[in-house]
Amino acid sequence: MEALITDLYKNSFIKAVILANKEIFTYINHELKQEDLNYSKKIGYGGDKTLNIDLIAENIFIKYLEVFGNIYSEECGRLSNDKKFDIIIDPLDGSDNFSSNLPYYGTSVALLYKKKTLAGFVCNLVNGVLTYKAFENDVKFEYFLKSRNSLLSSIDKKIGIFERAYAYPQICTKLRHENIKFRSPGAVALSLCDAKNYDFVLFAANIREFDILASLYICNDLFLYKTDKFVLIAQNKQIFNQIKEIIKQ
Amino acid sequence: MEALITDLYKNSFIKAVILANKEIFTYINHELKQEDLNYSKKIGYGGDKTLNIDLIAENIFIKYLEVFGNIYSEECGRLSNDKKFDIIIDPLDGSDNFSSNLPYYGTSVALLYKKKTLAGFVCNLVNGVLTYKAFENDVKFEYFLKSRNSLLSSIDKKIGIFERAYAYPQICTKLRHENIKFRSPGAVALSLCDAKNYDFVLFAANIREFDILASLYICNDLFLYKTDKFVLIAQNKQIFNQIKEIIKQ
Repeated sequence: MEALITDLYKNSFIKAVILANKEIFTYINHELKQEDLNYSKKIGYGGDKTLNIDLIAENIFIKYLEVFGNIYSEECGRLSNDKKFDIIIDPLDGSDNFSSNLPYYGTSVALLYKKKTLAGFVCNLVNGVLTYKAFENDVKFEYFLKSRNSLLSSIDKKIGIFERAYAYPQICTKLRHENIKFRSPGAVALSLCDAKNYDFVLFAANIREFDILASLYICNDLFLYKTDKFVLIAQNKQIFNQIKEIIKQ
Repeated sequence: MEALITDLYKNSFIKAVILANKEIFTYINHELKQEDLNYSKKIGYGGDKTLNIDLIAENIFIKYLEVFGNIYSEECGRLSNDKKFDIIIDPLDGSDNFSSNLPYYGTSVALLYKKKTLAGFVCNLVNGVLTYKAFENDVKFEYFLKSRNSLLSSIDKKIGIFERAYAYPQICTKLRHENIKFRSPGAVALSLCDAKNYDFVLFAANIREFDILASLYICNDLFLYKTDKFVLIAQNKQIFNQIKEIIKQ
């Protein structure tokens, strides 16, 4: 199947995703206006209210990526149907963080062929670090600024991540019972894509493709437990099983 | 009492704090090494294990600031006793985030005269934004990079912050009962200093001066509830009272 895709397509696609993210990163850090934080009149395809900045970011992605496939985004739904590849986008992962200026938000792009993910890109729009894995190659990083080396993290892991912990106090209680520390920073794609840095990443919600596909591809060498209510990723099998038991109860 | 402090001292101190933070920010983003994430042989004055990077950051602060007062830091304890002013430092707020490369960590510096805070500085070391309030002036920002304007945040607040939520599942349960959303990103000074952007910031722990003094001064126009177990800051009185009731139960 991989043979269907030319190297020209692969390289052009990677370059286009990098350029789109760079343009969004530059916009936010140089040109953002107060009105970009207002709600737009549109309701997103996912049912959530949409900020103007969601649409600005989405339009930048469309401009760079629509030539490569059918774009399917949280805000606009599916843009076309006639192309070979599908491109699933979350133009602003962590919208509520963004509008509150909690500096942890980003974007997420996945490329699919017949529902199989071929590439995943997650960009942190605060530090300008784009993490990606494409066409079965290793994970790579693109830095829009001189930022901390993404490979530098402690071998001795100290924290897990539990996204949307606030909605699952019973799970919080069980984690506390087993003395497990977690953070809940509020941008799912960002947290999942860095799972190798943490004890575990748990996301509890009505799981939607936009939120997770890119990160799952980036972490496809880790343990994954996925239902329609939970995504759990961990590198260590024992911790993975421990958290899985907790959420299955 | 303010008359005791010359403008030369004030301006030199502000400049020195900015330069110290800039040097730490540059080190982390240009020169960080894997061994900086290892534990040092020292145990911090606060009783926590100390990373090498804690000591590197602390030494940079000492270099720039010891001329201005008695430095008192989480890592080294009190350095001297003979000066007029005290300087309380957390050289790395969010150490566990730092070592896991969760991009939300910073520094905190407070200047005191006879236990009264005169200035507070909190620097986010990921985006290079230093927030400070000094000598009864308004809050100001210093940007080490071209970053998002710190004044741009939604008027319609959507999230609260609950630092160390993982250790207080009973409070998580009560917040859920009242349908209150929170994040728990893991760096206390950073979260507290941005309280005006959020519905509330709640920090539950054995409260230590290092963690909070700078941020409390930055937010001294907001509602504050402080005991030896909790710090709560909010701009809106109704939300403030609502959360206060929850934690007092």
